[in-house]
Amino acid sequence: MIAHLPLCSIPNPQKVLVIGGGDGGVLREVGRHKSVKQIDICEIDQMVIDVAKKFFPRIAVGFEDPRVKLFVGDGALFLKGVPDGFYDAIIVDSSDPVGPAQELFETPFFESLARVLRPGGVVCTQAESVWLHLHIIQDIFASCKKAFKGSVNYAWTNVPTYPSGVIGFMLCSTEGPPVNFKQPINPIEKAEEDDGRSPLKYYSSEMHSASFCLPKFAREALGA
Amino acid sequence: MIAHLPLCSIPNPQKVLVIGGGDGGVLREVGRHKSVKQIDICEIDQMVIDVAKKFFPRIAVGFEDPRVKLFVGDGALFLKGVPDGFYDAIIVDSSDPVGPAQELFETPFFESLARVLRPGGVVCTQAESVWLHLHIIQDIFASCKKAFKGSVNYAWTNVPTYPSGVIGFMLCSTEGPPVNFKQPINPIEKAEEDDGRSPLKYYSSEMHSASFCLPKFAREALGA
Repeated sequence: MIAHLPLCSIPNPQKVLVIGGGDGGVLREVGRHKSVKQIDICEIDQMVIDVAKKFFPRIAVGFEDPRVKLFVGDGALFLKGVPDGFYDAIIVDSSDPVGPAQELFETPFFESLARVLRPGGVVCTQAESVWLHLHIIQDIFASCKKAFKGSVNYAWTNVPTYPSGVIGFMLCSTEGPPVNFKQPINPIEKAEEDDGRSPLKYYSSEMHSASFCLPKFAREALGA
Repeated sequence: MIAHLPLCSIPNPQKVLVIGGGDGGVLREVGRHKSVKQIDICEIDQMVIDVAKKFFPRIAVGFEDPRVKLFVGDGALFLKGVPDGFYDAIIVDSSDPVGPAQELFETPFFESLARVLRPGGVVCTQAESVWLHLHIIQDIFASCKKAFKGSVNYAWTNVPTYPSGVIGFMLCSTEGPPVNFKQPINPIEKAEEDDGRSPLKYYSSEMHSASFCLPKFAREALGA
């Protein structure tokens, strides 16, 4: 979901940045999109990559895509070296906002993301569980509203192994062509045609749209 | 969800049967529907009711509705005494299909439900988690397809305290006016107007429709 929600929401994504995601799973899913020409990943922890390659080869397979270029380092620092408007899509596959990932949930970081995004580009960032972290989600929502001039939307999905069984994402767009995240205009079904990869098990265009339907308490908490 | 999915799918539900649900929560939610005149409940275990009244008064409050009539006994036996076509809606709030609840997941029971339902009436029965019990869900789906002449649909919802964080429901209709479960024609927003009860926190018409969107693997497993 964290890869297809943004990439299916815009036509023809070509340059993608992944921040975090050292296990390679997001890379694998980004790789399904044939329009994508460049996949940069900035992961802070080399050991995450090594462990994933050793023990989770079917996830780490994402690193084998020749379009992938790996940078090991701090995501916020990495962004400082990126020209304005460079990426079509950025996916922040972070851990929780404590310790090293703290700054990935703050306004300056979101402002850097907005800066390096082309007009009409999109960001998808890990945004916690509505059952456990509603206040954190409210903070992320407010910060993103400040940093991004386009639309800001919360989506959620099921991950039974995560605490509370769900995880959420903040989908944001910059100025430029408006992005309607709830209606995928670049449907995954197109990417799946004649594809040698194993078929998707969870994501579909229908699930994409449904993931933006929030429980009443969450919708009200976000004023959405 | 287990109460509003069926009751919001038909116009003017009046006679409702709950099988199981001894904690009173389903009764409380059925009670929001002003068209309902009669709420029968058949719970097999008196102790469930007593414990709920003692320790979970905000759930057991459902029993205080004057429309509620309690029968303590076996749900399948109870149905034998019900005339054909008697109920508008039946909600089966059962435990898992082991021990006493086993027969609530078998074809003869579903056939009894279909018999006591009026034409155009609906059933909503607890139908397990897509992450843990896909084969059981396939069996329930097949049995319901046999027993019910109308439509049979699987919906799911989030319950973070349940194993895997989700639970599902099978929504079934008999012959008679077709029921499109995915589009609530009796929206809850109508029931909530001028209502002294505490407002709903989770369910909405939007969540109702979204709950029928299934992950691709589940949709394919059900051939839906």
